[in-house]
Amino acid sequence: MLVALLPGDGIGPEIIAEARRVLEALDLGLGFEEAPVGGSAYKAQGHPLPPRTLDLARRADAILFGAVGDPDCDRLERHLRPEQAILGLRKELGLFANLRPARLFDELLDASALRPEVIRGTDLVIVRELNGDVYFGEKAMRTTADGLREGYDVMSYNEAEVRRIARVGFETARARGGRLCSVDKANVLETSQLWRDVVTEVAAEYPDVALSHMLVDSAAMQLVRDPRQFDVIVTGNLFGDILSDQASMCVGSIGLLPSAALNDAQKGLYEPIHGSAPDIAGQGKANPLATILSAAMMLRYSLAMPEPADRIEAAVAKALAGGARTADLGGTLTAARMTDAVLAAL
Amino acid sequence: MLVALLPGDGIGPEIIAEARRVLEALDLGLGFEEAPVGGSAYKAQGHPLPPRTLDLARRADAILFGAVGDPDCDRLERHLRPEQAILGLRKELGLFANLRPARLFDELLDASALRPEVIRGTDLVIVRELNGDVYFGEKAMRTTADGLREGYDVMSYNEAEVRRIARVGFETARARGGRLCSVDKANVLETSQLWRDVVTEVAAEYPDVALSHMLVDSAAMQLVRDPRQFDVIVTGNLFGDILSDQASMCVGSIGLLPSAALNDAQKGLYEPIHGSAPDIAGQGKANPLATILSAAMMLRYSLAMPEPADRIEAAVAKALAGGARTADLGGTLTAARMTDAVLAAL
Ligand SMILES: CC(C)[C@H](C(=O)O)[C@@H](O)C(=O)O
Ligand SMILES: CC(C)[C@H](C(=O)O)[C@@H](O)C(=O)O
Repeated sequence: MLVALLPGDGIGPEIIAEARRVLEALDLGLGFEEAPVGGSAYKAQGHPLPPRTLDLARRADAILFGAVGDPDCDRLERHLRPEQAILGLRKELGLFANLRPARLFDELLDASALRPEVIRGTDLVIVRELNGDVYFGEKAMRTTADGLREGYDVMSYNEAEVRRIARVGFETARARGGRLCSVDKANVLETSQLWRDVVTEVAAEYPDVALSHMLVDSAAMQLVRDPRQFDVIVTGNLFGDILSDQASMCVGSIGLLPSAALNDAQKGLYEPIHGSAPDIAGQGKANPLATILSAAMMLRYSLAMPEPADRIEAAVAKALAGGARTADLGGTLTAARMTDAVLAAL
Repeated sequence: MLVALLPGDGIGPEIIAEARRVLEALDLGLGFEEAPVGGSAYKAQGHPLPPRTLDLARRADAILFGAVGDPDCDRLERHLRPEQAILGLRKELGLFANLRPARLFDELLDASALRPEVIRGTDLVIVRELNGDVYFGEKAMRTTADGLREGYDVMSYNEAEVRRIARVGFETARARGGRLCSVDKANVLETSQLWRDVVTEVAAEYPDVALSHMLVDSAAMQLVRDPRQFDVIVTGNLFGDILSDQASMCVGSIGLLPSAALNDAQKGLYEPIHGSAPDIAGQGKANPLATILSAAMMLRYSLAMPEPADRIEAAVAKALAGGARTADLGGTLTAARMTDAVLAAL
């Protein structure tokens, strides 16, 4: 099995190196091939997603991705910016289903800004659509009839796009607590009205799953007020972006949250939900756990290796229980020492 | 001075009645005129914003608005739904600047889902644009070339729209802590790129205000992690909708948060940021404080009566300090008894 390693920018290379150590320690017979992506790829090769990188991503059985984002590149034309690499990979490989679990490790009850009694036992998954919405509609900087600059982006979903992500939501809920909350802004947006209509139609195929609908403003509130009310949330690309970052705070640190982006053949790209954190890059301070847990998701979903996936997750929990803490969790461990703690617990 | 009272749906009539009692107790010589709006107006007169209601809103010096939203009306054609009333008023009266303060009453340190040490001293204002964005662009339910249903909404801002709300943001920051954080999604949206460019241009007029930019996903996270880092946030219509509901949870209850929607002549519509709460309507349980505090904002911003505004705010703080609590704050007071506590403290 071939794993593509795409470290990217900022702390990306550091955390990918740590995750690779964990995968290698498990001796699973995986092959690794690395390629540049993001701002560093632009600087080296003139494009954030060079053809050879895309080719590797296509050839590989799964992709482990670090992070992209580089302040030096903010003023480039949009199609050359680092973010285009991840957006391009998601689109080119048809990775439409983004799974973003947010589970509280009991050991980190005190690391969250929320009260322990509010978050104890939080265990939810956000299923975010990743190939449509205002992310991929027509967009332009244009001039109005009055000669004013205007920014413009089209938001849309068609019923086929909603149906396939809704099914992932229902399947995920069926395999867990049996409750699916669909989040939209149907009181204002036609895109959301279609979303709500189609999710409601698909519900007929899943009589065993309890479906509810929530407006996105309410959901943002409820995720703070009482995150435990949620089992699975299914939502569009933009709302999923916002809510999953927010949810990460309910479980302690964004440095802990892995994610999977899957296509309909279960091929996947795995990445921590945090960004490239240029402010701490190169200092060895980054928390590698979100990437290590992303590697576990990769083993489970794309490489059909659920056992080593369980082992990694158990080792992370054990390392945390043993007191291992990086700076974002209030501790002093470097990324390498945190990984050592995971390896020791394997 | 004429105040238009638009109670609306659900708990709207109850909370407007309580706010009116407070205004009348102050004996300010205000005249009041009431008109139906929202689902109840649709049921009575066939339209959520009847012409006579819009006419009253135009004639009045200020508008005190309850809430709209009625599950009975969810399947009506969009232009007949309750929400169109508030969207119509905002647009028809040019109410483009939405001020949503979120200040923690020390007495409610324990009512929030966030830890006291995280929220103590939180005092921020969200300045939300209210006349543009994906709320008011072209929208449609259409059919794709393949015969699929598709929902569609155009997001856009032009430079004039961004400039005028940016100025409100800078002015608000100048009158407070001097820090403005502009929130967008410039790494994906052209609308946001224009937003960021124009806000940066306007900053030149306000050298005394410290401007920063934050992506909306980050902002959703930071509002939970450390809400005290913010002084004034300026953002578009959609992101402001989400972030302001979220921020309400940082200060205890959405039942406490007032808002103002102003046009360029300081004419305003004042409303609690919570909704019509149909589940508790008619039971006298609603928290009237957000509406009472909205009335205070109305006195200050549109009626040039800062003194009685201060008195109302002080009375609310005193009532809370005295232990007055409605159900949403963990207490047992009815709306009427909560208002009595405020009146006693006036
Ligand atoms: C980098 C950016 C384009 C991306 C997104 O908005 O999807 C990121 O925030 C994420 O959530 O993966
Ligand atoms: C009722 C709805 C249209 C409205 C909005 O989205 O603006 C509400 O959520 C608000 O924030 O005032």
